[in-house]
Amino acid sequence: MSSTPFDFAPLFPPGLPPAAARWTGRVKFDFTGGNNDPDRVPLEGLIAAANSVLKREGRTLATYGLNSGPQGYLPLREFLVTKLKTDAAIECSADDILITSGSLQGLDLVNRALLAAGDTVIIEEDCYQGSINRLTKLGVTPIGIPLDGDGMRMDALATVLAELAAKGIRPKYIYTVPTVQNPTATIMPVARRLEMLRLAEQYGVPIFEDDCYCDLVWGDKRPPAIHALSKTDNVIHIGSFSKCIAPALRLGYLVAPWGVLSRILALKTDAGSGALEQMVLAEYASAHFFKHVPVLCQTLRSKADTLMSSLRQSFGDAAQFDDPKGGIFLWVKLPDAVDTMKLYQAALSAGVCINPGPEWSVNKTRAKSRLRLCFASSSHEEIQQGVAALADVCRREFGVPK
Amino acid sequence: MSSTPFDFAPLFPPGLPPAAARWTGRVKFDFTGGNNDPDRVPLEGLIAAANSVLKREGRTLATYGLNSGPQGYLPLREFLVTKLKTDAAIECSADDILITSGSLQGLDLVNRALLAAGDTVIIEEDCYQGSINRLTKLGVTPIGIPLDGDGMRMDALATVLAELAAKGIRPKYIYTVPTVQNPTATIMPVARRLEMLRLAEQYGVPIFEDDCYCDLVWGDKRPPAIHALSKTDNVIHIGSFSKCIAPALRLGYLVAPWGVLSRILALKTDAGSGALEQMVLAEYASAHFFKHVPVLCQTLRSKADTLMSSLRQSFGDAAQFDDPKGGIFLWVKLPDAVDTMKLYQAALSAGVCINPGPEWSVNKTRAKSRLRLCFASSSHEEIQQGVAALADVCRREFGVPK
Repeated sequence: MSSTPFDFAPLFPPGLPPAAARWTGRVKFDFTGGNNDPDRVPLEGLIAAANSVLKREGRTLATYGLNSGPQGYLPLREFLVTKLKTDAAIECSADDILITSGSLQGLDLVNRALLAAGDTVIIEEDCYQGSINRLTKLGVTPIGIPLDGDGMRMDALATVLAELAAKGIRPKYIYTVPTVQNPTATIMPVARRLEMLRLAEQYGVPIFEDDCYCDLVWGDKRPPAIHALSKTDNVIHIGSFSKCIAPALRLGYLVAPWGVLSRILALKTDAGSGALEQMVLAEYASAHFFKHVPVLCQTLRSKADTLMSSLRQSFGDAAQFDDPKGGIFLWVKLPDAVDTMKLYQAALSAGVCINPGPEWSVNKTRAKSRLRLCFASSSHEEIQQGVAALADVCRREFGVPK
Repeated sequence: MSSTPFDFAPLFPPGLPPAAARWTGRVKFDFTGGNNDPDRVPLEGLIAAANSVLKREGRTLATYGLNSGPQGYLPLREFLVTKLKTDAAIECSADDILITSGSLQGLDLVNRALLAAGDTVIIEEDCYQGSINRLTKLGVTPIGIPLDGDGMRMDALATVLAELAAKGIRPKYIYTVPTVQNPTATIMPVARRLEMLRLAEQYGVPIFEDDCYCDLVWGDKRPPAIHALSKTDNVIHIGSFSKCIAPALRLGYLVAPWGVLSRILALKTDAGSGALEQMVLAEYASAHFFKHVPVLCQTLRSKADTLMSSLRQSFGDAAQFDDPKGGIFLWVKLPDAVDTMKLYQAALSAGVCINPGPEWSVNKTRAKSRLRLCFASSSHEEIQQGVAALADVCRREFGVPK
């Protein structure tokens, strides 16, 4: 028998994404990704929850779905019924909720239930990279709607919907992150949510509401979810525990009418999401969620302040941004001369990692000199040092800041 | 605004699976699924592991991938390096392993990396339903190879490979569950594993080895994995903690050469598998795995005995089966008059759930009067009562047992 390694390459089907690179560890100053503050992981509460829930009902781990069936651990869904009503004004029952392995699985399931190659969907012009990439891989055309300080612009949405209708194109959905938009950190006011619902109904297009950052709102109470404002059950709503508890816990949720949920369930062939995580989270959240979130938000807000002051200090007027209304990131505009795709590469060599704007937008030209900076996982000191290091690289490469 | 519910149905793409039915709870006598013995969930060990690992490094939950990168929690991969060497004679490093959300995600990832509609793969004639269904949904043709008491028959495999080669068809892989085959519970001897490798090399077809039941072997030590016997790195190996620890923990693993693993990693866009489960399992398994498994196997073997004696008692000679070599299920042949698809429906009404043979085989005719009975999750008493109830239904519907 020969010992020449077998060559798998001729077996790969067309359209496979490029090979991943070997992971080489985290960089020193990491302003990317949805990582959170390690000191705000509610460790004691999670440990106590693990103890009590496992002692009480750990033997159900012997059963797929924990005797709760395929929609997920019932106490977690029951907590969500309360949470969604309290925070988002959504009235639903545990039967309307599917627990997912992160809201990313929610994205995948909704896309698989609704999309085929050649379809059109509407999204926010600047948008979560993972959402854009998923659509591109599916051969679906995303039409970007410009944003302002109140999120997706309804005048632009109305124009696009009318134009598409004139061409006989019915988009499969309007995807929006209305509550702490990613990456602009805007919150869509109620009036605009109602206008979106009016347009959605007029054109027969459902809304896909991604509320994964909705817990991280500073100041006033968040507006009701679009799902809560709909009178026609035309909204699919997803959310996550990644941002409000811990990202490495892969737990999200999906709320949808049964006509859709029953099709999505048929696509969820993973034998359930992680049960230990569901049990521990349900046990923890039922007792502590509403106390934990404000403490986390206070930490995040203070880091946002540090990031903004660091940018002012290191970049001066060269860095423009709006005060974020919540979340874990800042969407920053640098002078037009700066190409953030190139800045990304140069900064990486200096141990600083950023999200270059073109990866977070369907308007690559407009996003060319923009970047997303996440502030949640770094310490205040790392934020200051990292921004200073980024400014040094930017000055060297593009002459700004002066 | 109208309040007529929005109709999603016109938006569904072609080929969507039928809607799932509402879950209505478990039946009284459930002989289906990979559920395990609730009393054998190592609860105290898992609780202690949760405490110690969370206290020591729980703050890493703030980071996607737990500072271990996209291949999964490093201590879990390091445990697997030891386990795979000790049990399966596989020599690999942590860099060769990807932690997956159950071995089902492993199946999906391997299929996405290698298959396209129109492809052909080789599988065992009687085979895990989930594997068959996945292939069918992808538009891939599975060619079934008959089994005997030593697993997949190599004479039949040689014939099929030659026939396909003559037609210019190169199958994408040979899928096998060689160690406690599902549903026949056979174990393929070393000589046959080597012959499969010889044929695989001769025809340029890689092997996809699913070892998800490999820990549940009674009696002698299991043979080396096919992966361990390959000299050309032409085997993709997957495994699971569902069967040996607890099925609701959604954790599996995949071992493959980097040329394949790097393509699979690019397809795993779920931001990692559940971190809490990975941490707790690694902590538990490193200390207790090799002591836990024999105790579990003893429990399972005694339940298999109860199932076999119950079948003899209630069905007499009408039920034929081989003594299983491990696992959690028995593959039973009833008289030709029995149609197990119909028996399944009738039994369900009587509170007994079985896996009808045609759902676990690509040879629907041969499997018509066969069924799979899982014995792990029911108590000894439930097994006896459930088999008696099944015999009553079968007698009423088909006149057997007499």
